[in-house]
Parts: sequence; C-alpha cells; structure tokens
Amino acid sequence: MRPSGRKLDEMRAVSIETGFTKHAEGSALIKMGDTHVLCTATIEDRVPPFIKGSGLGWVTAEYGMLPRATNTRMRREAASGKQGGRTVEIQRLIGRALRAGVDRSALGERQITVDCDVLQADGGTRCASITGGWIALRLAVNKLMKAGDVVSDPLVDPVAAVSCGIYAGQPVLDLDYPEDSEAGVDGNFIMTGSGKLIEVQMSAEGSTYTRDQMNQLMDLAEKGVGELATIQKSVTA
Amino acid sequence: MRPSGRKLDEMRAVSIETGFTKHAEGSALIKMGDTHVLCTATIEDRVPPFIKGSGLGWVTAEYGMLPRATNTRMRREAASGKQGGRTVEIQRLIGRALRAGVDRSALGERQITVDCDVLQADGGTRCASITGGWIALRLAVNKLMKAGDVVSDPLVDPVAAVSCGIYAGQPVLDLDYPEDSEAGVDGNFIMTGSGKLIEVQMSAEGSTYTRDQMNQLMDLAEKGVGELATIQKSVTA
Amino acid sequence: MRPSGRKLDEMRAVSIETGFTKHAEGSALIKMGDTHVLCTATIEDRVPPFIKGSGLGWVTAEYGMLPRATNTRMRREAASGKQGGRTVEIQRLIGRALRAGVDRSALGERQITVDCDVLQADGGTRCASITGGWIALRLAVNKLMKAGDVVSDPLVDPVAAVSCGIYAGQPVLDLDYPEDSEAGVDGNFIMTGSGKLIEVQMSAEGSTYTRDQMNQLMDLAEKGVGELATIQKSVTA
Amino acid sequence: MRPSGRKLDEMRAVSIETGFTKHAEGSALIKMGDTHVLCTATIEDRVPPFIKGSGLGWVTAEYGMLPRATNTRMRREAASGKQGGRTVEIQRLIGRALRAGVDRSALGERQITVDCDVLQADGGTRCASITGGWIALRLAVNKLMKAGDVVSDPLVDPVAAVSCGIYAGQPVLDLDYPEDSEAGVDGNFIMTGSGKLIEVQMSAEGSTYTRDQMNQLMDLAEKGVGELATIQKSVTA
Amino acid sequence: MRPSGRKLDEMRAVSIETGFTKHAEGSALIKMGDTHVLCTATIEDRVPPFIKGSGLGWVTAEYGMLPRATNTRMRREAASGKQGGRTVEIQRLIGRALRAGVDRSALGERQITVDCDVLQADGGTRCASITGGWIALRLAVNKLMKAGDVVSDPLVDPVAAVSCGIYAGQPVLDLDYPEDSEAGVDGNFIMTGSGKLIEVQMSAEGSTYTRDQMNQLMDLAEKGVGELATIQKSVTA
Amino acid sequence: MRPSGRKLDEMRAVSIETGFTKHAEGSALIKMGDTHVLCTATIEDRVPPFIKGSGLGWVTAEYGMLPRATNTRMRREAASGKQGGRTVEIQRLIGRALRAGVDRSALGERQITVDCDVLQADGGTRCASITGGWIALRLAVNKLMKAGDVVSDPLVDPVAAVSCGIYAGQPVLDLDYPEDSEAGVDGNFIMTGSGKLIEVQMSAEGSTYTRDQMNQLMDLAEKGVGELATIQKSVTA
Repeated sequence: MRPSGRKLDEMRAVSIETGFTKHAEGSALIKMGDTHVLCTATIEDRVPPFIKGSGLGWVTAEYGMLPRATNTRMRREAASGKQGGRTVEIQRLIGRALRAGVDRSALGERQITVDCDVLQADGGTRCASITGGWIALRLAVNKLMKAGDVVSDPLVDPVAAVSCGIYAGQPVLDLDYPEDSEAGVDGNFIMTGSGKLIEVQMSAEGSTYTRDQMNQLMDLAEKGVGELATIQKSVTA
Repeated sequence: MRPSGRKLDEMRAVSIETGFTKHAEGSALIKMGDTHVLCTATIEDRVPPFIKGSGLGWVTAEYGMLPRATNTRMRREAASGKQGGRTVEIQRLIGRALRAGVDRSALGERQITVDCDVLQADGGTRCASITGGWIALRLAVNKLMKAGDVVSDPLVDPVAAVSCGIYAGQPVLDLDYPEDSEAGVDGNFIMTGSGKLIEVQMSAEGSTYTRDQMNQLMDLAEKGVGELATIQKSVTA
Repeated sequence: MRPSGRKLDEMRAVSIETGFTKHAEGSALIKMGDTHVLCTATIEDRVPPFIKGSGLGWVTAEYGMLPRATNTRMRREAASGKQGGRTVEIQRLIGRALRAGVDRSALGERQITVDCDVLQADGGTRCASITGGWIALRLAVNKLMKAGDVVSDPLVDPVAAVSCGIYAGQPVLDLDYPEDSEAGVDGNFIMTGSGKLIEVQMSAEGSTYTRDQMNQLMDLAEKGVGELATIQKSVTA
Repeated sequence: MRPSGRKLDEMRAVSIETGFTKHAEGSALIKMGDTHVLCTATIEDRVPPFIKGSGLGWVTAEYGMLPRATNTRMRREAASGKQGGRTVEIQRLIGRALRAGVDRSALGERQITVDCDVLQADGGTRCASITGGWIALRLAVNKLMKAGDVVSDPLVDPVAAVSCGIYAGQPVLDLDYPEDSEAGVDGNFIMTGSGKLIEVQMSAEGSTYTRDQMNQLMDLAEKGVGELATIQKSVTA
Repeated sequence: MRPSGRKLDEMRAVSIETGFTKHAEGSALIKMGDTHVLCTATIEDRVPPFIKGSGLGWVTAEYGMLPRATNTRMRREAASGKQGGRTVEIQRLIGRALRAGVDRSALGERQITVDCDVLQADGGTRCASITGGWIALRLAVNKLMKAGDVVSDPLVDPVAAVSCGIYAGQPVLDLDYPEDSEAGVDGNFIMTGSGKLIEVQMSAEGSTYTRDQMNQLMDLAEKGVGELATIQKSVTA
Repeated sequence: MRPSGRKLDEMRAVSIETGFTKHAEGSALIKMGDTHVLCTATIEDRVPPFIKGSGLGWVTAEYGMLPRATNTRMRREAASGKQGGRTVEIQRLIGRALRAGVDRSALGERQITVDCDVLQADGGTRCASITGGWIALRLAVNKLMKAGDVVSDPLVDPVAAVSCGIYAGQPVLDLDYPEDSEAGVDGNFIMTGSGKLIEVQMSAEGSTYTRDQMNQLMDLAEKGVGELATIQKSVTA
C-alpha cells in the first residue's frame, strides 16, 4: 500500500557514516533512505552573551539544503540574502531538541554548533538532522571527555526523531516524500532513547485529527525512535 | 499557587473588541489578561502564484510585536532589516492554523491576510493571535457573504488556541509570562470549536515529559478552547 | 466646504488615553479624529557613542504603521527588509522635534526612545506622533523626577505639531486624508506651547505658493498648536 | 565675522561646468565654494507603475556622497547594504523640488532621473544638488525639445535652492560647513526663479526660533535664489 | 620537500563519483586529495533576459562552502545575509570557465546551472569545482542528447583547472592548503583537454614574479590539466 | 583598424590631476581617454583585527561607479542594497594589486583605504583605478613621510595596470569600450615600474587562446605599464 512497499510500521533503511569530514570535532553522514544529511559539530570556547559567566554551556544548530538537494532546484539562500521561514523554523527545532538532551552544566561554558546540511532530500530532513546531529554532538563530546576537558558526561540519553502521519487513511511510520506530500496530517516526534518526550509537533494542513489518531502516531514514533537510538549507540560506542 | 492566584484550569479574563480599526474588512482587539493583540483581516482579489487558476482561496498570516510591547524594549524588526526567527515561526503557525479551518474551495480564488500585531505582551501571544485572528477572518468572510461574493460559508468550525504547561510541577491552563518563563514544559494547542485537533506543539526546554503529562495538558486545552470558541461565536454572531 | 464639515480653522476631535500599555515608562494613545497613534517612551541608561561621557542625554524616535492602518494594506516593513523612505523621513522629524524641546543637560546621560506606531491612519500621522510622543516623553520624565533620578525638569515647554494646507483654494487647519490627498500645498508646523517655532516644513507638490499663503498657514498652525498644548498639559498634570 | 570673511548676505562663489560627463542626456558639475556636486539627468521611456497610461511624466532624484567627500571617510553606502536616513531624506527632497517645477503633462510619459553625487562636501550639498540638478534636467529637456520629442517646454521657471541660518546670532546666507555645524537654526529654501516658494524646511536643533527670524532668513533666501536662477539661465541658454 | 611528500609536478590523488545525488540532471563528487566538492548540474528551459530569443543557451555557476568544510567554522553565508566577496569572485570564475567550453548555439535556448558545494576544503576548491563542474555539465548534456533535445554536441573539448605556485622557492603543481597558505605566488590555470587556454589568473600577495616563473607554472599546469582531462573523459564515457 | 584610429601598441591619452579633492590625504582624477576615475586615499590609525599588534600596515580598496558613468544608467548599488559581483571582484583586485607594491612593515600599523569611483566609463576602469589609486596612495604616504610618521619609504616601485586583448584578430594595447565589447580574449596586466609581474588575469569568453597570444599581450602590457609608471613618477615627484 505504501509507495515504497514498506509495512505501516517500517522505517526506511538507515545508514550512518561517522567521520565523514575531517575538520569537524564530530561528523556523520546520515541516510534515511534517499534523505541524506551531513551533520557536523563544532566546539568553540565561547558562549552567547546571555549565559556568559553562568558556567553553563550552549548547543545550537543551523540547517541548510543544497540548491539541488530537491527534485527542482531551489534558490540558494546565501544568494537570495536570507534564510527562508522554513529553514529558520527547522533549525530552531533542531537546536531545542538537542539542548533538551544535554546537561549544560556538565558541558561547561562552551558552545557546540551542529550544522545539518541536506545533500539529498526525500522527506523527513528535519528528523534525520536531529538523529544525525545527535551523533555528531556525541562524537564531539567524546573528544572533550577523552581530552579531560569535560569530566561528567553531559549526554545521558540519546535524542532521536522520526516523522509519522496519516497516509491514505492509515497511520504510517517515517514518511518519505511521496507520502509526505499526500498526508493531510503528520507530525515530528522527538524523544530520548529511554522513551521520554522532548517535542511533539503534529499538524494538519487543510483537515483535522483526533486524539485517537494522535495516540496511534505516538505509538509508531516510540517504535521508530527506539530503533534509531539503538543505531545511534552502536555507531558512537 | 499560581502567581496570578488563578486555579489550575482557569483561563485569564478574555475581552474582545471587534471593529477596532475602520479600514480592515475584519478587525478585533483581543485581550487575554495583559496580552493584547490587534488582529485585522484584509481581503484581496489575488492569490499566490502556486494556486492561480485552481479556484481555491488562500489564507495567510503575519505577526509583529511593537517594540515596547514587552518589559524591555526590543529592536524594531523593520529597523534591523529582517523578521527574527521567532516571528517567522509564529506567523507560519498562525497561517497554518487558520487555513486548517477554512474550506478553500468555498472561499473562492481570493486571499485573506490576517495581521496580528501585539500591542502588549504577557505570555501566550501566538495563541491569542490565532483566537483573535479567527475572529477578524470570520468578520471579513461575513462581509463577503453579505455581499454575495461567497455563497457557501467557508468557515464551518471556529479555530482557537491556548497554551498549557507544567508549572511548579502542576499542569496549568493558559500560561501568563511569569509562568511561561519558569515552565520547563509547555505546549500550544490549536483546536476547532467542536474539539478536533489542528496542531499540537509541545516542547521541553532542558527537560523531558511523559505521555501522561501530555494527556493532562490535552485535557486542559480542550476545556480552554471550548470556552474560547463560545466567546468567538458570541462576538461574531 | 471641507469634506468633514469642519470650519477652516477647526481641528479634529482630539482624544488622549495615557497609560495605554503597561510596560513602557510613558505611553499614550492619541486620536486626532480617525488617526490613531500609540506612543510609548522607553528610558535606557545608555546613550549613543557620539555623546558618551558628555553628561548630555538623548531623545530619539521610531515610527511605524501597522500594515492595515491604511485603506489598502501596505507591505509590512519588517517583511520587506527595510524601512521605507517615508518612514525614515518621518521618524527623523519626530526625533528632531522632541529633542528641540528637551534640556539634554537636565535629562542627564540617558536615552529616551519614543516609539510612534500608527494603528489607524487618516492623515496627519506625523503631527499626531509628535504631539502624542511628547506626552509619552513627559510621563516618562515624570517617573524619573519622582524617583529623584532627574532633579531639574528637562521639559520646560510642551512640543506639539499640526498640519495645515491649501485645500480647494482655502487655508485649512489639520488636514484629514481626503483633504491631504487633494491639497497641492501643505505643511507641518512644530511649535512649543508658548508659540516658539521648532520646525516648519511646507511643500508644494506640482505647484508653488506665496509668502502670504505661508503666513496664513502659520497663523492657523499657531491656533492649533495652542489648543494641543492645553490638552497635553491637562492629561499629564 | 563669518569664518570665510563673507558678508552676511553673500553667497559663496558659484561655478558650473555643463557637459561634465559625456553619456548622460544632461550633466553639470556645480561648485558652491568647496561643495562640489556632479549632477546627471537620464531620460528613460518608461514611468513608474502608478502613472502608467496617464500621459504624465515623472522626475525623480537620487543622491550619494563619495566616501571621502567629507573630512573623515564615511562608510560606502553600497557596502553597508543600505542608504542611510539622511541620504533618503535628501533625495526625496530633491525629487519633490524638481517635480514642482515641471509641467508633467508637457513632459509626456517618460521619466527623468537626476543623480546628484557629491564629490566634495563643505555644507549645503542638498541645495547645490537641487540647483545643479535643475541644470542637468534643463539640458536633458533641451535635447528632447531639439529632437521634437517634446513640443511645449515643461520647465517654465528655474528651480534653485539655498540654505540660510542663524550663525553667531546673525542671519546669514549660504552656510558653509563651519557655519552649518555651529548654527542652532537653519533652513533650506527652494524657490523658482520668479520668487515663488516650492519648499521651506526650517528647523532648530536644541533651540527654537521666532517668526521674525524666519522672515529674515526668507529675505536672504530670496536674494540668493535670485542670483542662482540668473546663473542657471546663463549656462543653459 | 613538499609537506605531503609529493614530487614537484605530482597532483594529489583524484577520485570522482558520478551520480552522487539522484535529483540533478548531472552530478559528481570530486575529491582532489582532501578537497571534496559536490557538483550538480540543473537544466532549465529558460534563459536570462539578455539572451531571450537569441537561440543561444547559457551556463552559469554558483559556489558555496559548508560552514565546517574548513579547519575553523566559518559563518554560514545564508545566515549573514550575503555571499562574501571570495564566493562571488569564485562563482563568476567557474561560470566563465565552463561557458568558454560550450557551443552555446548547439546547446539551444536553455540554461544549465552548475552548483559547486565544498563539503571539505584543503586548498584548490575553485579548480576542483571547475573540473568537477564540467563532469556534471557533461552528464547533464549527455541526457539532453540521449533524449534528442540537443543534436550536435555543445561540449567539444573538456575544461579542467589546476593551481600551481611557487612554494619554498620551487614551482609546484596542485597546491594543497599547507602549501597555498605559504606560497607568495600562485595561479589558477584553466585549459581545455587539447591544451588551449581559457583563463589564467596568477597573482602575488606581498611580492612579485617574473615571466620565467610564469612560464614554469604554465608548463606544470599543462601537465596537470592533461591528466585531469583524461580522467574526465574516462568517467563520463 | 582600431575604432579610435590608434596604432596596435598605442595607449589612450593619459591625464592626471592630483589633489582633485581637498579632504583626502591623497587624491587624483585619472583620465585614460574617456575613462575617468576619481581616486582618494584615506589614512586611518587602525588596522583590521587579523593583523592587530603585528606591526604591519594594511592597504585596501573600494570601487564604485556613478549610476550614469555608463552609456545606459545602471541601478545605484546603495539603493539595490548590495555591491554587485563585478564590483566586489574589481575592488578585491585593486586591493591585492596595491598591497603587492607596499612594504607593510615600513608602513607601520595603520590602514590606507583607496577609493576608486568611476565618474565616466569607456573601458579599462579597473586598470585606471589601479594606476590612479597608486598615485593617491603615493601622495598619502608622502604626507606620512613628511610628517615623520613613516621613516622608510614603503612604496619602492610604482604599481600600474593596463588591459590588452585580441581585437579583430590582432593583439592591441589598452582596450576602449568598443574594443572591449568585441574582444573574445582580453587580460588585465598589473606590473611594477621596473617590469616585475604582480597579477595577470587573462580570460576568454566563448573562445580560447594560445601561449603565443598570451606572450604577445604580455609584450604589449610591458610597454604600456612602462609608460604609465613614467607618468606616475612625474606627477608625484
């Protein structure tokens, strides 16, 4: 029934290549099917003005898409002179999501910037960015801990995200682009590896949904995030 | 226990003044306690390029805050040369929320722009914007129907929104600013008057939450939106 | 003869609501007929770099118009990425006008920013902004004096402004929009309550005028500003 | 008494070189003492959208200053990404002033853009721009008339401008920079060669003025503009 | 003697993966040692206004660098609101270089945009972009020819580029970052596979060079481009 | 054969007026035929952050064109909100060229900004800017040396530039606009007065060239720069 032939509760094949670039303190190329996102984590010894002197660290994220990551070429944001509304919305979400999984006191007064750049898009780029971004973050923090700069691990529980939606009347896990463009209701579910909720965004475009449907999607999301967390742990062990 | 002395499931006093400005096709000043938002709806006989010729209408929203709507003066976005990430995120949410309650085919090929400008802020401005924005939209559509330009009512069910959160360990309805700035978990719940869900955004900053807590906030939100829908109907009858 | 039925030397009804917003140190909603401007004054303990250490204070102004303050919706300046030429010109005028009425030495090294946001426009918004802006400024300074932060009153003489023009061949006081859009010659006259001149801007679009006509408009303006100053004093006493 | 040794009612030496650049339809380098402005007029066979089809022409102006036209280098506006408030204010003034002297119906549906670029500044650049801009405009219109594209002369009366102010307690004509930076009251007076008024802008910074003082400056301005108009006619004959 | 141990006339290992992304009409990931650039070619059925109706095609290029492609994170250009001078300079060079190798009449009235995005930088990104960009262009044109949209091959001779410089007093081929940052003289040499010159840019920073040295670098460049052209042909055959 | 009637190796008439503006520490109006560029040099006692404390000086350049310097009016860059790609490319070239001729240690920790503003364009503006810019720089440095602020002359050898190209199949010196717009191959050659090379940029648009042709243009350029250096020395002696 799904265009890809997947079962309702089946995620796309996940592949993660850590250390994809050599300069970043942490990096990973995450592939969720045909959605490919390059995530890098950069450590800097400075924090935003509003927490200077607080002893707390900061984690922030930026998101971008290469112009031809999509089926039709999109205008390069650097050329059009500003980041579009969708970009801004997504990178704020990624930043909040990752921060929710960080003990900022254990991190100490430093900033980690996670850049998520979509090389190829086929739906679910923001969720892939969060899942892959956490891996880059984990690898960067590992470096800090190995060097003794951070003593107590600030990342206690992995953070991952998956989208679910109502496609052709059925709740399905991990929407790809053909499903996403048809689904009247879909949501992004960000959770920790141990099943705690960080952020739920579930919206209808031109329709509505019920609490029952919401709960069905939540069940699928829990399954998906559980699988992603297992993979995250295996590649960063 | 709440700074305002309200009960856990008690909304702030709501006051709505329709027709607050004379030029707009629909307008309302909505006050949710000390949060005051001026909402206007503008009808134009043109639609965005991507739906030209489709016979469908469009509803979009813009959001702004006067520089001294807040406790500390914020830089005027027109002067700083761009809308901030928070503004962009909010106005996209308002637009999606209102569109979900519109039969775009019944509206016909025209665009309604809902401007939500915060004159005074005390928490919950995006929810007040949606609730008040729907009223401005309703009044503008009434005008179209009275003139015979629209025959079948495109607004079948009112759209309203309320925020809920975990404050001091308790689920509370309709956070004001002192609560909002303390709450580790909060959400915006957008529903129709008949209780259907349009969008749920529930996030934790620096913590996590459980499905039980999510359900408690959903229950509060249903109560709040129900009350708001009743008021919406009474002032636009 | 005037569209509104007013006499040649008759101003529109003036109404002023002080304390319209709670956060600003001074605020007023001024209504000159159907022109409604919300003015707020913000006190900050810093001054622009060019007067740092001089012991002098600074007063500046910003001006904005809500998108649907006008008959046709105008593009939001924050969205278009810059303030238009008209906006820049007006806010510089307001700032100069208010500064002319301030003893900057008595104010001491602090800055007061007066924001004038037009909620509804029907001609004469820059004059209403100056008149209302002075009230917000007065209220903010009152607060400083009450707190003992300022000892000698830096506002010795109120500042107010009114527009006059040649409409249908006759000199008229306080142009509303229907008059303003027809008048070939009009001017903005900014004076103190005691009748001293601060700024005169009198221009013709597509025509010229004589010194006689200029003097007639000056006479009208003196009458108008006198009345406004009386109102300013009564609402800030 | 004046830093330059000039009499109170004495203008700076005026020199005008027409045809300073070869591409423009009209061009002039005007020197008012050490203030040097290059003015060019460009004719285009299109008009702004709001007058398309009206049969009327349009005259507009742009103003700029080379970075080192001033004593201290100013940041290049093209590099800082926008025209400053002062620039915008000035170019709108130049445009209005020139338009006031144009019979737009006689000009026909075409646009003339007058660019005024300050090569060296020593006070009074906006007035020099108007006076020199009119010469460039006159030369461009001469070309149109010679070619038979315009039959009835749209420039019936020359437009010129001069600044006057109260310097060291005395009314003086044509302020140079040392005077301008000291004067508490100054004004720009734009008139036609036959003595009609187009625009008066007279402002006080940190002080006030009387109608008597205003009249004294008006008298000086009439003298100055009369002399400028004579020169304008002689170089464009 | 070279930091990498390479011989003076030895290029870095070259690796090219065509079809790296699935949406673009042509794509290649080119690796010149540790410099990795993703090149995509997009075909569109429209041309810039200045050649509309001419029957000629257009090839243009855009260049970007991911924020952490470099040793230190650079600010994202989309976030800073404009493309930096270096970016603009490089993408204009790439566009000119590729266009020089295209028979625009044979291409027909369509545009091909070549995006070159640096995933990892280690010197020579502009040359790698040209060499890889030509491959993406070749693949896209192959598609047009296969579909019969283009009949006569517009790409007669491959275009490739290599940098050479004076490092530690010796002329060397294909500078990597450690060499590039030390070299006082370096150049970019863009040629066709058959040895014709397209563009030479050879500059000294804080020093000068002789025609002899220029000729030595030209000799090296001819060797390098010859090798690159062979690889280009093998991967696009 | 050349449109201007010049011989193949004949430059346009060169005229240089030093001290063209009074505020700049050095200034010159350079005319290469109908190409007129105003160059000013500004000395400031600060350097860019990346060399602070190094004891080295910095020389940078900015380039602009008046809107009607060209045959058709171009949009003012300050109005369009950014410098175009061509402008950026040129001003970076000028800066590099001038820096190559400066002993930055002898200059000491100060910055000289050379502004090159094209008043009238007829081809070769970037070369004229470099040649004229060096004169402004020379005059400013003379002032520093006269004042004893700089002891050892940081400008040992003049820097000048000239363009050459293949026009109608023949190598020609110093292209004017009619030649430049026809030439398929042209280059900018920047050298010192003693014949050392600083930067060569030689490019083909829609064609290619040989090393022989390159050498012919180099020969012409050496002749041209030699003549320019002689003029530079005579006007700054």
